[in-house]
Amino acid sequence: MWQQSTLTLAPRPRGFHLITDEVLAALPQLKAVQTGLLHVFIQHTSASLTLNENADPTVRGDMERHFNMAVPQGAPYYRHDYEGDDDMPAHIKASLLGASLSLPVTNGRLALGTWQGIWLGEHRDQGGSRRLVLTLMGE
Amino acid sequence: MWQQSTLTLAPRPRGFHLITDEVLAALPQLKAVQTGLLHVFIQHTSASLTLNENADPTVRGDMERHFNMAVPQGAPYYRHDYEGDDDMPAHIKASLLGASLSLPVTNGRLALGTWQGIWLGEHRDQGGSRRLVLTLMGE
Amino acid sequence: MWQQSTLTLAPRPRGFHLITDEVLAALPQLKAVQTGLLHVFIQHTSASLTLNENADPTVRGDMERHFNMAVPQGAPYYRHDYEGDDDMPAHIKASLLGASLSLPVTNGRLALGTWQGIWLGEHRDQGGSRRLVLTLMGE
Repeated sequence: MWQQSTLTLAPRPRGFHLITDEVLAALPQLKAVQTGLLHVFIQHTSASLTLNENADPTVRGDMERHFNMAVPQGAPYYRHDYEGDDDMPAHIKASLLGASLSLPVTNGRLALGTWQGIWLGEHRDQGGSRRLVLTLMGE
Repeated sequence: MWQQSTLTLAPRPRGFHLITDEVLAALPQLKAVQTGLLHVFIQHTSASLTLNENADPTVRGDMERHFNMAVPQGAPYYRHDYEGDDDMPAHIKASLLGASLSLPVTNGRLALGTWQGIWLGEHRDQGGSRRLVLTLMGE
Repeated sequence: MWQQSTLTLAPRPRGFHLITDEVLAALPQLKAVQTGLLHVFIQHTSASLTLNENADPTVRGDMERHFNMAVPQGAPYYRHDYEGDDDMPAHIKASLLGASLSLPVTNGRLALGTWQGIWLGEHRDQGGSRRLVLTLMGE
């Protein structure tokens, strides 16, 4: 059983955002999958997907502050700077975090741990809407 | 062909640990898969899975020392600090390394390179036991 | 439908390289897949795969300069140093970026975003040729 759909996320401010509920709402077929995988893919190079803590919003804020420290804007070695100071750091963050998640499906539900949620990493100041491709496979 | 099982890893000290043998021991069905994938997923947000060198233990030690330098404890910008100094860095390391691995299966074996092994990244001082979901698919 | 093949990439200099065309050329079966996934796996621990910008080569140069800053050669805490100054940093970069990509397939094509391309991260000075395992699945 293979199913694929796209999901367009509304524009969000720079930072990390919990999108588990939005992804689940786009997957009515999930409950028909006994054993499988959900692949979530973002079609952009300046935003990312990661799994992390689904409760305390300060974790998302700390993650953003950490990445801004670790991947600075305006580093003297950047040559790709004509799209703004946030552009090259966004590309680097996107590769550090990744563009896709593969999540196990068990008995019609994502087999996430108690504290795991799906995060969108929006790394541009004005990233606009972001497009996901959801591929559900299994039996 | 889809099969899924869980594997609970005994508690390990903070650092990186080679777990290839333990994962393989939990997969008696692997030899029945001609062509496929193994998906290994960790249900936690303060531990991670990665592939790296399967021989010299100093690689695992250097990795731990590097991540402790790159993701410091007690950074002044952390707000999520009530679960201990190792907590927020553990969340960041978990996202940098990732919560899952997808590995090709060929003729009943993992098609890893000669030097590749599956590593658990334990990022908490007292992480306790960790739960994996193993999903094997193929034909 | 499952298909698997290997692809050996010619040696490349240290840095990031766009390999989308080479991967696609190795996948004549791709156009037969209506809905599926392509899994691209590198069998090495000192090179990596990532998705990033497929146009401006300065993005690849900036990425290399950033990783060289963030993961320094000759750090005082490295113990694994007998294979050269570029060796331990290469292992760390490989884990930060990852050894595999899972890409959605739609109507016989990779469903990448407009600006997304497949990058090889060559993290050794003399990495030699690199071996990929391509696993195509779907219907």
